[in-house]
Amino acid sequence: MRFLLLALLLFPSYSSAQNVVRYTTTNANVKYLFATAEPVAHLKSGDILDTNTLDCFGNGLKKPGDTLDMAKGDNPLAGPFYVEGAEPGDTLAVKILDLQVDGDMGVGVFSPGFGSINSSKYTPVLEKSPWKERVWFYPINHADNTATFKALDSDFSVKIPMHPFFGCLGVAPANGEARSSIVPAEFGGNMDSPEASAGNTAYFPVNVKGGLLYLGDGHAAMGDGEAAGSAIEVPLKARVQVSVIKGRRIEWPQFENEEAIMTVGAYRPAEDAARIALTELVYWIHGDYGLSEMDAYELLSKVGKIHFNEMVDPNYVVVASIEKKYLPKKK
Amino acid sequence: MRFLLLALLLFPSYSSAQNVVRYTTTNANVKYLFATAEPVAHLKSGDILDTNTLDCFGNGLKKPGDTLDMAKGDNPLAGPFYVEGAEPGDTLAVKILDLQVDGDMGVGVFSPGFGSINSSKYTPVLEKSPWKERVWFYPINHADNTATFKALDSDFSVKIPMHPFFGCLGVAPANGEARSSIVPAEFGGNMDSPEASAGNTAYFPVNVKGGLLYLGDGHAAMGDGEAAGSAIEVPLKARVQVSVIKGRRIEWPQFENEEAIMTVGAYRPAEDAARIALTELVYWIHGDYGLSEMDAYELLSKVGKIHFNEMVDPNYVVVASIEKKYLPKKK
Amino acid sequence: MRFLLLALLLFPSYSSAQNVVRYTTTNANVKYLFATAEPVAHLKSGDILDTNTLDCFGNGLKKPGDTLDMAKGDNPLAGPFYVEGAEPGDTLAVKILDLQVDGDMGVGVFSPGFGSINSSKYTPVLEKSPWKERVWFYPINHADNTATFKALDSDFSVKIPMHPFFGCLGVAPANGEARSSIVPAEFGGNMDSPEASAGNTAYFPVNVKGGLLYLGDGHAAMGDGEAAGSAIEVPLKARVQVSVIKGRRIEWPQFENEEAIMTVGAYRPAEDAARIALTELVYWIHGDYGLSEMDAYELLSKVGKIHFNEMVDPNYVVVASIEKKYLPKKK
Amino acid sequence: MRFLLLALLLFPSYSSAQNVVRYTTTNANVKYLFATAEPVAHLKSGDILDTNTLDCFGNGLKKPGDTLDMAKGDNPLAGPFYVEGAEPGDTLAVKILDLQVDGDMGVGVFSPGFGSINSSKYTPVLEKSPWKERVWFYPINHADNTATFKALDSDFSVKIPMHPFFGCLGVAPANGEARSSIVPAEFGGNMDSPEASAGNTAYFPVNVKGGLLYLGDGHAAMGDGEAAGSAIEVPLKARVQVSVIKGRRIEWPQFENEEAIMTVGAYRPAEDAARIALTELVYWIHGDYGLSEMDAYELLSKVGKIHFNEMVDPNYVVVASIEKKYLPKKK
Repeated sequence: MRFLLLALLLFPSYSSAQNVVRYTTTNANVKYLFATAEPVAHLKSGDILDTNTLDCFGNGLKKPGDTLDMAKGDNPLAGPFYVEGAEPGDTLAVKILDLQVDGDMGVGVFSPGFGSINSSKYTPVLEKSPWKERVWFYPINHADNTATFKALDSDFSVKIPMHPFFGCLGVAPANGEARSSIVPAEFGGNMDSPEASAGNTAYFPVNVKGGLLYLGDGHAAMGDGEAAGSAIEVPLKARVQVSVIKGRRIEWPQFENEEAIMTVGAYRPAEDAARIALTELVYWIHGDYGLSEMDAYELLSKVGKIHFNEMVDPNYVVVASIEKKYLPKKK
Repeated sequence: MRFLLLALLLFPSYSSAQNVVRYTTTNANVKYLFATAEPVAHLKSGDILDTNTLDCFGNGLKKPGDTLDMAKGDNPLAGPFYVEGAEPGDTLAVKILDLQVDGDMGVGVFSPGFGSINSSKYTPVLEKSPWKERVWFYPINHADNTATFKALDSDFSVKIPMHPFFGCLGVAPANGEARSSIVPAEFGGNMDSPEASAGNTAYFPVNVKGGLLYLGDGHAAMGDGEAAGSAIEVPLKARVQVSVIKGRRIEWPQFENEEAIMTVGAYRPAEDAARIALTELVYWIHGDYGLSEMDAYELLSKVGKIHFNEMVDPNYVVVASIEKKYLPKKK
Repeated sequence: MRFLLLALLLFPSYSSAQNVVRYTTTNANVKYLFATAEPVAHLKSGDILDTNTLDCFGNGLKKPGDTLDMAKGDNPLAGPFYVEGAEPGDTLAVKILDLQVDGDMGVGVFSPGFGSINSSKYTPVLEKSPWKERVWFYPINHADNTATFKALDSDFSVKIPMHPFFGCLGVAPANGEARSSIVPAEFGGNMDSPEASAGNTAYFPVNVKGGLLYLGDGHAAMGDGEAAGSAIEVPLKARVQVSVIKGRRIEWPQFENEEAIMTVGAYRPAEDAARIALTELVYWIHGDYGLSEMDAYELLSKVGKIHFNEMVDPNYVVVASIEKKYLPKKK
Repeated sequence: MRFLLLALLLFPSYSSAQNVVRYTTTNANVKYLFATAEPVAHLKSGDILDTNTLDCFGNGLKKPGDTLDMAKGDNPLAGPFYVEGAEPGDTLAVKILDLQVDGDMGVGVFSPGFGSINSSKYTPVLEKSPWKERVWFYPINHADNTATFKALDSDFSVKIPMHPFFGCLGVAPANGEARSSIVPAEFGGNMDSPEASAGNTAYFPVNVKGGLLYLGDGHAAMGDGEAAGSAIEVPLKARVQVSVIKGRRIEWPQFENEEAIMTVGAYRPAEDAARIALTELVYWIHGDYGLSEMDAYELLSKVGKIHFNEMVDPNYVVVASIEKKYLPKKK
């Protein structure tokens, strides 16, 4: 049964049998919490969801001259989407089929108190920032799939290839918690993982009935660490397929594609995020691919990857991964 | 003058005018400290050094069945090499021209108390490790440029492409310090940076007259983080070109090649290593490429890379980088 | 106005004018979240609340032989108590008038996966714990105010003086979040601060109308760090006085008594918790006592205290403090 | 044998049989490294050393108006003192018999780039400090045992009780390392531990023949964390008794007095420093006092202390302790 579902997941056929649920996200129906809340739509396992997400400012900043106080909330989320049959102890699989930047302008922002190498809320220093808020606008060129950086303080611009992904992707947390959409943690959330892009499947622990999937915070491109606090922030058009894997229990989010398996650690300090991702990856290799824990550990030490997603949010996010070509055949 | 030196550095011509110094490293002449010590050879700026390094066990483990107590010291180093004209306040550039695995067998080891996700000296837990020392041997195939992982606890093997690099590369520390060859810090040292490979130039702050370059701890391949505590450990044949950049003062090691500039942070927690690398990269972009600090910070947030080298040594090492194609022309 | 309220707070007179609200906490009415929820009672600013709290196991473990699976939930909370007039931007003052251990037996527990120096959820290592759950019972002697530790593995016992305090004390979080009662953060929560004891006043930021005060997780005594994951866990009889300080905005919890002012940092890594507490204390001294920030910083460097409360919960808690005798007269 | 030595150590009799070695420290004979170096004097086990130390500025700042560039080096050290019979694997005990402030003026300094809550070398932020170097002078009153803080930016002064201790106390490191006198680590060093005061005995691992004891960096008083980067810096007159404990091997420094045993962790992040101190304390209790590791862990969770010494040096220092009254009789 599990094998069948995974097969379905990794090689979807888009058969006419697959149901497509369409949902339109607007500032009137977004949420700002990963929480147990009234679903906006119900999906069956295997259904495809066709929707859109607003950018992290609620699409409030549109053109040069617009300022951060025009933002309509932080990280508005589409959802929650209820997936039938999902129960605590299951895993929710979200295969990202297609992501398109939904507009012609991306936005980047520096805001005092937020960022990896300036005084911040959780790593404060006494020095008051001499810098004020700054906003960069990135014209989108759909034809050549780029967004253009334009320096504010000198005459320089450069094109950046787009790699659209969800900054926010996750489910309702365990234990009745409700977490702000700026937080990444065990339930996914604001992971800012470029791994949340078309072609990849994300797995989340199901903590409540229906799982309650949320999506948002589209990024056209982002550097590792999201150093200054923002990516190229954009609205997205999104097509994902949701599936319930019954009886597979995971503790932290995971990603998978045809080439690799990937685990997410979301905590502080950064080495704890990495420890979470690495231990989860050892257990995954041991459980599904049959290497002993020691052999798995050794193999990761030779070919594993550790990818720093962001170190600006309330928790830092690290993804550990290994290419499947280095693993035995799956059990 | 600086421009000329850099040009030389980045596009070496191997002209007959370049002097080649040959030095043979053996267990009889290795060092175990990055320190101010008697040089084993003197080089002029621009000279090429042709030498070899022993593996991190002093080539003591040779074949299946050999055990860790046969190791001849930890991370034996070739050197130090004195570079004429190098004085405190200068930068030493080490262009890695060629690295070849010097043997037919690589080694990996798990040793209780050392590793990223087991109880360790600096992150101890009460749980005593149930695991004993384990040793993996990796047959080297020079023809297809691979090393082969063979599981110890099941019947599985897989070929791993080789990417040879120095695990140890650095100079004498500042302030008269002498640091063990297992430590990475401001002077470089046991950085375990895959960036220390052929085609790249490493820069180090010169802290004492002559700089005093050390090399060692060859790796045929390594996963990010060097999770279980070792790479595929091998002896190397090495060819590097050293140059002094007069009057350029750097605080932490850097790497550069034709495509990218890269900065090293070596500290704990891992976010401090990343903070060091990121601030140094902002300053480098600002100083040499003319973007304002804010524009540089924003650009890194969109296209920067953060690469986790290792999180097992006494300090953790992170490399931040940006591709030159995203930067203005160098000033 | 503010002066008057503080005076009231620090030198309460128990006059007949003060209203006393009595509330009985049972397993039937406890909560497990710091969240916006239906109040169980309404208080006026200046009112005294007379209530009781269950121990962290819902009073489920009563005598030697009882096991952790008899616990009725983790950290059940009394409340929430709505304080009239409290609005976002105000500060809620909770003066702890009296705390008494409500029973004859305290409990301590080691549970694999929770603790400061064993493999834990957020700092995992591969080593599986060789230790199983252990439970220690601490007979309470009200006459000499002690609880007795009895070793499980040898014949040794020793009396420990009691210092009763709330392990959990806090308000509804900001931004609509709901946080598990095992979490300490900006809203207070599971701070495990011995500072939450009789004679001290705790201050919390008001995030929602009414503030919504929660209390629980009584401790008869605790070592710094709560190293093994529990204190001497006990039910409490509690008497506190709540007051609203209009227009005083704080970012993190604070404590105060006649001798000292104290600030709370609750985050990870531990140095970030300390940074939060220290910056908040500099700002407090600067704002209310008139020293320049630099003079305040210097003075803390000479006479400040940093107290490690716990390093086992999802965030670590540190309290920084300075005795008032070292400060100028309050402005 | 060990018992006898410890007895001697804890209850010294100052009998005429005890040899007293006198040594005068000046800027001409100080060292700036904990390292293997030529001893300045030889001591027998049990001998008393009567010496003096310079302040951390080499006594270079003497009166209001003096500036940091008048400092003669950072943390000059008296020593090294060779203790006969001390060999690797032994423990060196240093009983601090008497410490007196050697002068009439103490000094405190803020220096940009150094401190717990400002941008620093190992936790850098982009914000440039708006603050320049500041120097505070603390007149010493020997009659009432106080030093007086005088605010620089307002008219306020306050007396601070003196508690003299060594900021630097340690031995030559292992593995041939030489470490700057601003670094605390396994060998002791710049621990900034108020525990290094009269009445306490410090224990250090012996790493080289003779141990090679260094002393310096006297503090008249210091707040936890040494937040702004300095204590009340003073020269000291010191009287210590050294003893070799043959065959007792320790990994990290320890302190002991009649009331308590204390362990030192010196690393980053701060929780790793605490983990080191706590595990060492569990092992000490288990080894010398006979409680099982689990009982020791539980007992620390109830009555242990964790004391934050400093979080400004290259490593952070934490001391964990337990009062002997809570322990079984020593084995």
